[in-house]
Amino acid sequence: MENIKSYVNQHKERFINELIELLKMPSISADSAYSQDVLNTADAVKEALEKAGCNKVEICDTPGYPIVYGEKIIDSTLPTVLVYGHYDVQPADPIELWESPPFDPVIKKTELHPDGAIYARGSCDDKGQMYMHVKALEYMTQTGNLPCNVKFMIEGEEEIGSSSLAWFVKRNQEKLANDVILISDTGMISNTQPSITTGLRGLSYVEVEVTGPNRDLHSGLYGGAVANPINILTKMIASLHDENNHITIPGFYDKVEDLTAEERAEMAKAPFSLEAYKKALNINQVYGETGYTTNERNSIRPTLDVNGIWGGYTGEGAKTVIASKAYAKISMRLVPNQDWNEITELFTKHFLSIAPPSVKVKVTPHHGGQGYVTPIDNVGYKAASKAYEDTFGVTPIPQRSGGSIPIVALFEKELKSKTILMGFGLDSDAIHSPNEHFGLFNYLKGIETIPLFYKYFVEMNS
Amino acid sequence: MENIKSYVNQHKERFINELIELLKMPSISADSAYSQDVLNTADAVKEALEKAGCNKVEICDTPGYPIVYGEKIIDSTLPTVLVYGHYDVQPADPIELWESPPFDPVIKKTELHPDGAIYARGSCDDKGQMYMHVKALEYMTQTGNLPCNVKFMIEGEEEIGSSSLAWFVKRNQEKLANDVILISDTGMISNTQPSITTGLRGLSYVEVEVTGPNRDLHSGLYGGAVANPINILTKMIASLHDENNHITIPGFYDKVEDLTAEERAEMAKAPFSLEAYKKALNINQVYGETGYTTNERNSIRPTLDVNGIWGGYTGEGAKTVIASKAYAKISMRLVPNQDWNEITELFTKHFLSIAPPSVKVKVTPHHGGQGYVTPIDNVGYKAASKAYEDTFGVTPIPQRSGGSIPIVALFEKELKSKTILMGFGLDSDAIHSPNEHFGLFNYLKGIETIPLFYKYFVEMNS
Repeated sequence: MENIKSYVNQHKERFINELIELLKMPSISADSAYSQDVLNTADAVKEALEKAGCNKVEICDTPGYPIVYGEKIIDSTLPTVLVYGHYDVQPADPIELWESPPFDPVIKKTELHPDGAIYARGSCDDKGQMYMHVKALEYMTQTGNLPCNVKFMIEGEEEIGSSSLAWFVKRNQEKLANDVILISDTGMISNTQPSITTGLRGLSYVEVEVTGPNRDLHSGLYGGAVANPINILTKMIASLHDENNHITIPGFYDKVEDLTAEERAEMAKAPFSLEAYKKALNINQVYGETGYTTNERNSIRPTLDVNGIWGGYTGEGAKTVIASKAYAKISMRLVPNQDWNEITELFTKHFLSIAPPSVKVKVTPHHGGQGYVTPIDNVGYKAASKAYEDTFGVTPIPQRSGGSIPIVALFEKELKSKTILMGFGLDSDAIHSPNEHFGLFNYLKGIETIPLFYKYFVEMNS
Repeated sequence: MENIKSYVNQHKERFINELIELLKMPSISADSAYSQDVLNTADAVKEALEKAGCNKVEICDTPGYPIVYGEKIIDSTLPTVLVYGHYDVQPADPIELWESPPFDPVIKKTELHPDGAIYARGSCDDKGQMYMHVKALEYMTQTGNLPCNVKFMIEGEEEIGSSSLAWFVKRNQEKLANDVILISDTGMISNTQPSITTGLRGLSYVEVEVTGPNRDLHSGLYGGAVANPINILTKMIASLHDENNHITIPGFYDKVEDLTAEERAEMAKAPFSLEAYKKALNINQVYGETGYTTNERNSIRPTLDVNGIWGGYTGEGAKTVIASKAYAKISMRLVPNQDWNEITELFTKHFLSIAPPSVKVKVTPHHGGQGYVTPIDNVGYKAASKAYEDTFGVTPIPQRSGGSIPIVALFEKELKSKTILMGFGLDSDAIHSPNEHFGLFNYLKGIETIPLFYKYFVEMNS
């Protein structure tokens, strides 16, 4: 399939410009101020799928943001690939840390991206990676290289928990029937050492509220005599980890799969420099659960992190106040076999149980999802591996990711098919952070690799 | 001095309206957006002192907000009373919890204030209480009842640490020379049981900043492997109290004066209903240091409270982020003999020492002040006691307060005189909280009581 290389080369300026137009749309699903932009982005994705060769494209209404569905069915006896991606993006704040405006894409060269990278919110997560599939389809339909049927399902609520997608999938099992699901919403080790994500962590995200006195109080007149909800909240949160950074919620680890020494040894082979990792983050020391390496801590082990905390006076200067309320947003990353609903319940029960009687505590679940594992003897995995080998000249390493795509476990349950996570981003792409970017090399290499997956997947299935 | 009652009765409408005009001025010293309002308030106080009969009034420049100085010297052989108060107020937030706008005073009747109370920021703390002295002076000069010399020193930075006042006092010892200092910036037990504050707590106020990674990170890709500054901050703050709610900073209690069993028994005689206290705050249980009663915890014992905390994503919805930084504002209330500079140093040293090497920690002192005790055998105390007895018909109880007026210890050091804290507010007046108010009964009773203090103080000194 040498001609994919020349096709990409011939059209790359247009591929980049089309993506830049898509990145200009601030499709922030978490903030209702951007709802019209989210809807406009769905329209733009519909148009792109039509132009790329789908013979049916629909904007499917849901209880939330719509799902863009597209398909090109060439022969019902051939296999069907279902491509999933999302057109929504994370909020851009803290906005002041962006070196260029988040929705005004610019191309800059960096040490890791000597050919340049596109800087914009969503460039890697997930507009850029989703759009690789649209352009791969264009190549296959334009050049007569589409070897099977293809369906696209692009949602607008991935960054807020995919609840409408779950609703949609449950109601459209026949329409979405497929032999393999293909997603590019993960990363790889480096541009010279590709990897394929074979595990995802689950997620439980909750918000907690601690109420002390019924109003803000003068800290002199009441200090020391009344429970201060901020002090209490810090005590409660601190108690969620023990001195080994083990999570203390009873039952939390009950279903956690322990990897064998062999599996851990295999994992340890992935190239990793602790010095480079610390330098990139400007930290003197890493921090985590005793007995596990950095790569284990953020992939095969569950975690609990406070994502936001607030309460009392946070303005300029000083105010001697005891706040009435304190709040935190807390998320737990889960590993395969941990059920997110069960973990949310365990958290809630435990958090309420450790509240002293001098305060009132409320726990509100935000959203969540199950973890997932792809077996490496799966045909889809093998086809993907061969595709990367062709384009990178190196066999990709299977890797567990610390991130979550909660919907993947649901796909398996509802659609009875496995998901292959062909990611082309890098850890350093700053997804969810200021200055998110996506390498042009990675974008174009993705477009080049995807059609090879189709080719090998059909060959291996026939 | 029966005619003070009739004078107050005759002029009370005007006294109330004048105070209302003063309360309309948003003199928030902590927020630079209000700096012109603070300056305008100083002008208004100057004018009020002139009208009340001072024969010299000055706006004295300082490195910060000006101090309004006024005096009426009638005979240099007679004693001199120095009145201190402040014209600045606390910030009004959380603004949404005010039932009427904080700077648009309204009079409402309540259970505790059947004659009505003025609702406005600063109504009790301290514009209302300060203005009682201005009106008491008016009475004494208008009716020929001023028995001694009087000086006023009204500052505009009490709510942010009085640093310019300290600067001013050190430079003006002769100008401020006096025989007793009179302050109304504290409270009393109830409208039927007056009390005089004989002790104030000191204060050390600091801000802390914890820095983890150099940028916000995706909590899936990094969660569990990198120190989360919010989690670390909660752990550090939580560790500042042990299981008995004793503060764990080494050396913190070294200079704390332990009261004798007799002194504690004397304190316990003050009327106090734990049930009413809990009901007023809508809490199920009080909370504090083991081994001490509620009234001891907030008066004779030092405390440590978080006044504000923030970090990470605090907006609508969910963001799976590990913040780069987390912050808290922390204040410690100190008891006599604890030196605030020393405590600030002990805090800083300890807080830096408990930071794990995976984060960077910064401690910035905001401000502070020493605690204070007035002996009850002091002539000023006796004169004040007799004045309350005349107007309330009940002997006032001496009481230690949990609050701080850091400048009182400085007055003693620089001006060599004792301070008498004649407070007329109630604990329920919600100072520093939304819906601050001051009873009309309290305001007018204060105006009535103050001239009697002058009378008895001069009699007892002659």
